[in-house]
Amino acid sequence: MRNELRLGILGATGMVGQQYIKLLADHPWFKVSRIVGKKSAGMSFKDAAEWVGEYDPPASIMDMKVDGANPESQGADLFVSCLPTDGAKELEPLYARLYPTFSDASAYRMEDDVPLIIPEVNAEQGRLIERQKRSRNWMGFLVTGPNCTSIGLNMTLKPLDDEFKIRKVIVSTMQAVSGAGYPGVPSLSIIDNVIPYIKDEEDKVAIESNKILGKFVGGRVEPAGLAVSAMCHRVATIDGHMESVYIETEKPVSVNDASQALRDFTGLPQSLKLPTAPEKPIIVREEPDRPQVRKDKNAGTVPGMSTVVGRIRPGLDNHSLKYTLLSHNTIRGAAGNTILTAELFYKQGWMNL
Amino acid sequence: MRNELRLGILGATGMVGQQYIKLLADHPWFKVSRIVGKKSAGMSFKDAAEWVGEYDPPASIMDMKVDGANPESQGADLFVSCLPTDGAKELEPLYARLYPTFSDASAYRMEDDVPLIIPEVNAEQGRLIERQKRSRNWMGFLVTGPNCTSIGLNMTLKPLDDEFKIRKVIVSTMQAVSGAGYPGVPSLSIIDNVIPYIKDEEDKVAIESNKILGKFVGGRVEPAGLAVSAMCHRVATIDGHMESVYIETEKPVSVNDASQALRDFTGLPQSLKLPTAPEKPIIVREEPDRPQVRKDKNAGTVPGMSTVVGRIRPGLDNHSLKYTLLSHNTIRGAAGNTILTAELFYKQGWMNL
Amino acid sequence: MRNELRLGILGATGMVGQQYIKLLADHPWFKVSRIVGKKSAGMSFKDAAEWVGEYDPPASIMDMKVDGANPESQGADLFVSCLPTDGAKELEPLYARLYPTFSDASAYRMEDDVPLIIPEVNAEQGRLIERQKRSRNWMGFLVTGPNCTSIGLNMTLKPLDDEFKIRKVIVSTMQAVSGAGYPGVPSLSIIDNVIPYIKDEEDKVAIESNKILGKFVGGRVEPAGLAVSAMCHRVATIDGHMESVYIETEKPVSVNDASQALRDFTGLPQSLKLPTAPEKPIIVREEPDRPQVRKDKNAGTVPGMSTVVGRIRPGLDNHSLKYTLLSHNTIRGAAGNTILTAELFYKQGWMNL
Amino acid sequence: MRNELRLGILGATGMVGQQYIKLLADHPWFKVSRIVGKKSAGMSFKDAAEWVGEYDPPASIMDMKVDGANPESQGADLFVSCLPTDGAKELEPLYARLYPTFSDASAYRMEDDVPLIIPEVNAEQGRLIERQKRSRNWMGFLVTGPNCTSIGLNMTLKPLDDEFKIRKVIVSTMQAVSGAGYPGVPSLSIIDNVIPYIKDEEDKVAIESNKILGKFVGGRVEPAGLAVSAMCHRVATIDGHMESVYIETEKPVSVNDASQALRDFTGLPQSLKLPTAPEKPIIVREEPDRPQVRKDKNAGTVPGMSTVVGRIRPGLDNHSLKYTLLSHNTIRGAAGNTILTAELFYKQGWMNL
Repeated sequence: MRNELRLGILGATGMVGQQYIKLLADHPWFKVSRIVGKKSAGMSFKDAAEWVGEYDPPASIMDMKVDGANPESQGADLFVSCLPTDGAKELEPLYARLYPTFSDASAYRMEDDVPLIIPEVNAEQGRLIERQKRSRNWMGFLVTGPNCTSIGLNMTLKPLDDEFKIRKVIVSTMQAVSGAGYPGVPSLSIIDNVIPYIKDEEDKVAIESNKILGKFVGGRVEPAGLAVSAMCHRVATIDGHMESVYIETEKPVSVNDASQALRDFTGLPQSLKLPTAPEKPIIVREEPDRPQVRKDKNAGTVPGMSTVVGRIRPGLDNHSLKYTLLSHNTIRGAAGNTILTAELFYKQGWMNL
Repeated sequence: MRNELRLGILGATGMVGQQYIKLLADHPWFKVSRIVGKKSAGMSFKDAAEWVGEYDPPASIMDMKVDGANPESQGADLFVSCLPTDGAKELEPLYARLYPTFSDASAYRMEDDVPLIIPEVNAEQGRLIERQKRSRNWMGFLVTGPNCTSIGLNMTLKPLDDEFKIRKVIVSTMQAVSGAGYPGVPSLSIIDNVIPYIKDEEDKVAIESNKILGKFVGGRVEPAGLAVSAMCHRVATIDGHMESVYIETEKPVSVNDASQALRDFTGLPQSLKLPTAPEKPIIVREEPDRPQVRKDKNAGTVPGMSTVVGRIRPGLDNHSLKYTLLSHNTIRGAAGNTILTAELFYKQGWMNL
Repeated sequence: MRNELRLGILGATGMVGQQYIKLLADHPWFKVSRIVGKKSAGMSFKDAAEWVGEYDPPASIMDMKVDGANPESQGADLFVSCLPTDGAKELEPLYARLYPTFSDASAYRMEDDVPLIIPEVNAEQGRLIERQKRSRNWMGFLVTGPNCTSIGLNMTLKPLDDEFKIRKVIVSTMQAVSGAGYPGVPSLSIIDNVIPYIKDEEDKVAIESNKILGKFVGGRVEPAGLAVSAMCHRVATIDGHMESVYIETEKPVSVNDASQALRDFTGLPQSLKLPTAPEKPIIVREEPDRPQVRKDKNAGTVPGMSTVVGRIRPGLDNHSLKYTLLSHNTIRGAAGNTILTAELFYKQGWMNL
Repeated sequence: MRNELRLGILGATGMVGQQYIKLLADHPWFKVSRIVGKKSAGMSFKDAAEWVGEYDPPASIMDMKVDGANPESQGADLFVSCLPTDGAKELEPLYARLYPTFSDASAYRMEDDVPLIIPEVNAEQGRLIERQKRSRNWMGFLVTGPNCTSIGLNMTLKPLDDEFKIRKVIVSTMQAVSGAGYPGVPSLSIIDNVIPYIKDEEDKVAIESNKILGKFVGGRVEPAGLAVSAMCHRVATIDGHMESVYIETEKPVSVNDASQALRDFTGLPQSLKLPTAPEKPIIVREEPDRPQVRKDKNAGTVPGMSTVVGRIRPGLDNHSLKYTLLSHNTIRGAAGNTILTAELFYKQGWMNL
């Protein structure tokens, strides 16, 4: 492994791009060396981006020039992408052909040979890239991360599915405005209001969950046979998606056993001690009124990377259960999950660098 | 029927009490003649109550003296009560013994001989008071209204249950801060936050629904055999509880048939043309992003009395369905529903006045 | 006077346009007959406008076709305009040449021969149109209304200036997000935040105040010699601009005398009993914690048209005073003020129709 | 100097008490050894306090027992106090008689022999304790910190007064709800609202400023002859008071000179390198729309300790100026300022420990 990899960001001027810049500011392995944007090519990052975060970006980034999309000549070692869907559709293959490319855009998530990774949940599906590189004849590869709502949900479904075999999931979400990017949700639309609709979100959650929890067999992902129904709402919070989950299981499930399974959950990022891996992927709170968005979104050893679960209580019978989870939507739900995935690939030697 | 009834309010200084005062300001049948409070007895209403509403109360009320609890000598014709639970437990029977008493407190909701009424849904259960008066040897009687969350939910379950026979309900709520009264939820607890917990609320919704939708047979209410699981959340809205509902039905259910059933729903208050009855108990919106709290809480001919339903869409199979509803929690969910119930009893001649 | 005038709206699809539609829905004199928009010409209003209000617009408007700008052939009797600045600059003269045109856009507010009217404050300046029509050789004319912040401020400055002769005004505002239109302020920018900046607003308040309070002498407005310094802030409220005002006066001023002057203030709209005139242009509250945005923005006989004043208290000496005012920014601060102005012109016979 | 001082907190269960606990968690000099409370004496801190912060307190504190007020036997080395006014009035002298006691309560701020300290602004006034100890015959002493609004204001007035001699200050504030403690401001009162009133706040700001900026001569503080008029508002933000300030000065003042004076400002805490001293007491931003509450409240090297200033612009003439400042109300405005003051006294050897 080389000491430090040069990392390029596709679509860096948006909200998630800014999250990448923040999270990578002191990263031990990856150093932001390129910023690629279509509309703002040629401008300095400072002029191109309306900085929305609650901190000031590093001066080195502020003065960096935004490159146009020009995969051939952009010698970074790897790329992360947070392009909007159309841009991702067009540009990601051009970069993935040449470089390891990690994206949180939705454009290629459901392609057969594209991994959809939450590193603690389905690291093994990362090996889909072997088939991807072969069949597409690519030097690089494309790995995606799920939708922000899917990530928190599947982080908690995984240990419960392993233990109790989940059949049905009814989930209702209360999602933060940062999930819609910037400028995103108009303030006139959300102050003193709830909007019970987020375009395409409910379908994504259902479909992605079956891929994420699917089995990796014979070089393919076999979808989990999970019935998932989501009801998604936008509320007036800044960061942090809350999800209240009702599950039905094949095996009997108790509150105690479920709590234990969630508490004990750990994954490859933890055993590999990846830099962005939180000590505990899932934090279970016992208080009746937790998790709460503002209080818990940054809980744990790596702020924004742990999913906080609480209110674990019985469902309607002993084959059902309900609980509430909170997952930081722009960190674990986007930039943080992608960085952790890149760390995983790097540490596993899957980058071939 | 007399021309105008003198109405007393038990617990008038709180938030719901103020809602009663507002709604009754120009009522054609009932005139507020007494205000009863324990702690503030002897004070003027103006001094006793911290007025929280977005309008000024009538001067006549502001100067009214708050009476102590003294049922024997308080010659109103009927009473409404919005006492806190303990106060209701103690005082409501003392008034119900003598007067028609209509309460939105929870203290006696689940008593066998006490009606729990949403006038459009289960008016016939009002006749429970016959048994109540007989067995308790009371001149008056006690009628209750359900919890604010139960009211919106059961308003929509009723037509769907009639048509498709509901077996299971998974409901997730996003409730306004006014539901906790005044001062209620501290601002520090709810700005940029969601609280996934409202004490006792989830149990109330489950239990009350089975009484509300139960059958009135042989002078008794036979509980509906409905499995109801609620997940209740507090969000930063002023008024209006939003509820996202997933139901499973015995008979196959389609989006079209369900919409039609909800749209067509009407009840005794409508046919009796009661003063506080909205033209349509349920308003169905077709837009993908409605109902919304701020935009829809006052929809319909009587602001705050209609339940607005939207996002009707298929569940996981053809025996399931999901939708979102909005119900104004201090009007239909409390004072408005109680006034409508009193109107029903009056018009039906059940008051014996 | 004709019985009913046909009114066209320039720029009807935006937020203020929607406010016009709401306020004119049952107007006794004016009936919306035309909707003019550039970008959405040819579409139905329903398709052209994202309706943001807390009520549903009349069906007649929803189905109305948006006309392109075509002054020659658009036979309405008068026009109101809420075009964005550039559009106003281009189109308003083309309409004003032919029709009485009333605008709340800023493009022509400071022109020498264009009235800048708050009907209760400076109705007499309306006669500037005589010179305007003459010199421009127009059949119609253009009348403007001040910036939303200027309107509330000058409504209260007028009676105080008349009585105590104001020399200096230091005003600090807390302005609602609707003032920025729709989509306007991103929710990410304002939840749990205050923005101490609204482009050009502080200058407008200073300059406009001197015209509004100026003397109309010899067919010209002589600017008042008022030193006005504004500090403008955006806060997370929906509607209603709050302004805390510190004034220094030439004559000694007492809290009592100032309260009386504000309370007694009345104008031509009141004596003419114009349909949109509130009974009291200024409502004075005595409580120490009023006005409040949510509670007072719709106070008075015509919701949104009265300015509510409170916290009148001494300044640093007996030639100074401070107080807080609240003015509804999209009603009195825009559409409502313009409609009232049009009513004034109609009733005074200044329309020549 | 001893290596580590044992510190007791008077009134630790409230919001500011929790802020003390957080800020002292890893303090190099002071270690929380006692928690004193009246109502909760005998309980564990965990049971006594409703923890409101966005982080979890150290376990050592959670299990600490709350002591009753018993100054004689409570061998800590110093005390900090955040008692409510009445409690402070009663208890602070009992502790100050025996121990160095640092308070952010208002009870004794204006006593002649009690320092009212912002360490960067008027450290020299700390020596008032010499007279205090002598005249009261105390072993310990009492030092206070100003009101949260006064602190941010005077931090910025100091360098401007030094340079341009301030005569008059008109300040308008937009204060966060945490300033009212917990439960404090009801959510029903502040969502979609502004409250133009905070009890006693405006007077405190005026009076305290004259003591803070006064001259320390002959063992006494001679009040600065400053005319200060404050208009205080509560807005829906969590932490961080914003203040828009208009000043009039004796000497001519320019934007450039004022910016420079604010930028260059530094104090004893910086030169002594006190642990809680921010590198820069004042941070000046150039952007037209800063400071903003959420983005800037934690700016600088010690989160919550720097005052952020922006929008420096001319007043009505060349002897006036206006600007906006942001100061974290529970850190610099309370616990942080008191800790910094205790550090100052310790380092200066004024504690006599």
